[in-house]
Amino acid sequence: MGEQRNMNITRRSTRRVPVGGIIIGSDAPVAVQTMWDRLVTKDDVDSVLKEIALLKEYGCSLIRFTVASDEDVPIIGEIARKSPMPVVADIHYRHTLALGAIAEGVHKIRINPGTIGPAWKTREIIKAAKDAPCAIRLGLNGGSLPKEFSSLESGEAMVASALMYADIFEQEGFPDVIVSLKSSDPEVTRRASESFALQTDYPMHLGVTEAGPLIPSVVKSTYALTRLLEQGIGDTIRVSISGSLQEEVITGMEILRTVGLAEQGVQIISCPKCGRARFDTHQFMIKHEQKLHRIRKSLTIACMGCPVNGINEARHADIGITGSGNRVIIFKKGEIVREVTPEEAEDAFFEELETLL
Amino acid sequence: MGEQRNMNITRRSTRRVPVGGIIIGSDAPVAVQTMWDRLVTKDDVDSVLKEIALLKEYGCSLIRFTVASDEDVPIIGEIARKSPMPVVADIHYRHTLALGAIAEGVHKIRINPGTIGPAWKTREIIKAAKDAPCAIRLGLNGGSLPKEFSSLESGEAMVASALMYADIFEQEGFPDVIVSLKSSDPEVTRRASESFALQTDYPMHLGVTEAGPLIPSVVKSTYALTRLLEQGIGDTIRVSISGSLQEEVITGMEILRTVGLAEQGVQIISCPKCGRARFDTHQFMIKHEQKLHRIRKSLTIACMGCPVNGINEARHADIGITGSGNRVIIFKKGEIVREVTPEEAEDAFFEELETLL
Repeated sequence: MGEQRNMNITRRSTRRVPVGGIIIGSDAPVAVQTMWDRLVTKDDVDSVLKEIALLKEYGCSLIRFTVASDEDVPIIGEIARKSPMPVVADIHYRHTLALGAIAEGVHKIRINPGTIGPAWKTREIIKAAKDAPCAIRLGLNGGSLPKEFSSLESGEAMVASALMYADIFEQEGFPDVIVSLKSSDPEVTRRASESFALQTDYPMHLGVTEAGPLIPSVVKSTYALTRLLEQGIGDTIRVSISGSLQEEVITGMEILRTVGLAEQGVQIISCPKCGRARFDTHQFMIKHEQKLHRIRKSLTIACMGCPVNGINEARHADIGITGSGNRVIIFKKGEIVREVTPEEAEDAFFEELETLL
Repeated sequence: MGEQRNMNITRRSTRRVPVGGIIIGSDAPVAVQTMWDRLVTKDDVDSVLKEIALLKEYGCSLIRFTVASDEDVPIIGEIARKSPMPVVADIHYRHTLALGAIAEGVHKIRINPGTIGPAWKTREIIKAAKDAPCAIRLGLNGGSLPKEFSSLESGEAMVASALMYADIFEQEGFPDVIVSLKSSDPEVTRRASESFALQTDYPMHLGVTEAGPLIPSVVKSTYALTRLLEQGIGDTIRVSISGSLQEEVITGMEILRTVGLAEQGVQIISCPKCGRARFDTHQFMIKHEQKLHRIRKSLTIACMGCPVNGINEARHADIGITGSGNRVIIFKKGEIVREVTPEEAEDAFFEELETLL
């Protein structure tokens, strides 16, 4: 069911990196990830785990936490052991935090060797990861690159740095590496990721960094990520939003769906209001959008305001709702299945939706 | 100031259509438009005009209203006479409403000849528009197309319908036509608009119709519109959101900025929260985002949470704010200009911003 998008994307062939129970790379599903946005204390673990379970319903496959102090190490260990999805530890400056997180059983760590200091520290992390085993993301940002590349354009500097750091992993015989090259400029992110992808077989994590609040981030992330994903580049993605984790996951899934790479999930089409509407599509969508985003079956759901663009324009939808005079109509594939009062509309819609799930 | 994007976009050469005081087409700036979302009574006109003035601050250049009844006609006339931007009347079914709106002095009407009925009605509208003068948008939607094209793929059917309708305008010797081909599928919208653009010299209005609530719409609209705009296609755009008009305009401007077609406006970069942050970037952004989007000067503003990705990553920003321990730092182009307490941060930031405006 649902609209079938056929973008004919051939995913780039990469090494396959196990991260906890999932695979990142090659033809494995592109994994949507997000990053925890608050400090976590021991007492928070249960509520964190509940929220991770909810994020999974939205389509999230990986969750990342900052490990910034020694106190964070056992906490991320407990989360990693109990989490319904693989857990990534994000580490800067102190390589002993990486060693601690690996010992605690996290499934992946993300480091930027540029903030880890001398190369022997990165090598110690690699050795520990090899023994664990634990995957490593080599995560470079346009803003923190080695000085020796400062004469290069920032995208080229990211690529050169990543190739240099990747060499350390090769020397240590450690294959389970995922690479990301993030800039706050979507075009630099795109160019750098493209260039690195062409030169290596590492799975790639994609994202525009410091992308801003919701709308600017969704625009910039969609711009860069869809262009890469359409070329088959990108094995896991994160949309960075100064906003909520749910928004990040919903956007990530919508990006995958738009290029035809999401295997499941709901396609929502709905009118903007226009003064013609007799049924308040906005109120209905705002009230139910979160619930609809958690459906993991492939469905197109239409929420139309008026007769002009109503049933006909949404006749490809698996299920839809629209107003007509003082009545509300529920339709499936363009055929009216129910006609109810506005008060009955919500219950009737979800009853009919239920029959499709 | 600000990041200079150089996409080297060569705009498509089109006829130039005057709409009120602006030009749509060729090298005229791409106009962002939105559509009023509530019924308007005579008593609402003043508050509508105030909101239009606010939308203009966000970068809106055109505003559209549904004209669905005889009562709407004098109201849109009054709005058109007093509005700070050109006013468009959206008309379906009754061609006399179009004649009324044109007589009232609206600057453009949008019709879909498929809902207007027999061709003579469209010809009467064209004659009235020629005398006024008033521009016309031929606005086709994937969902309401002539039956004779029903065997075609929906994008091709839109193109064929638009070419057929455009012929009526040519026969009447009326040049001031803008064309839109909107589907709820971003890929169909892209292909149809591309194909029509290659075959004609009409300025094009771009949009994905019934694009859904905020996140799905921003993703789908960014996907389709950036691909068209990068090819030089698109002279005016609308992002349809089941949400607010301000969100539509902010997204439209962000799309133009991302492809390097916005001449003004603020580029916001900001961290997502990550647990490393000591300064609450989210709260700051949420509180001030609307104000920042109304700055019509080209500036990059950074709002960073922590030392790791703070000043250095945002050193290209014209102005930025970041936390460091218990202090908040305000920087310009990577140089610290103020160091204040969190309580003083907001005032200090806007004082420094003011010096750039």
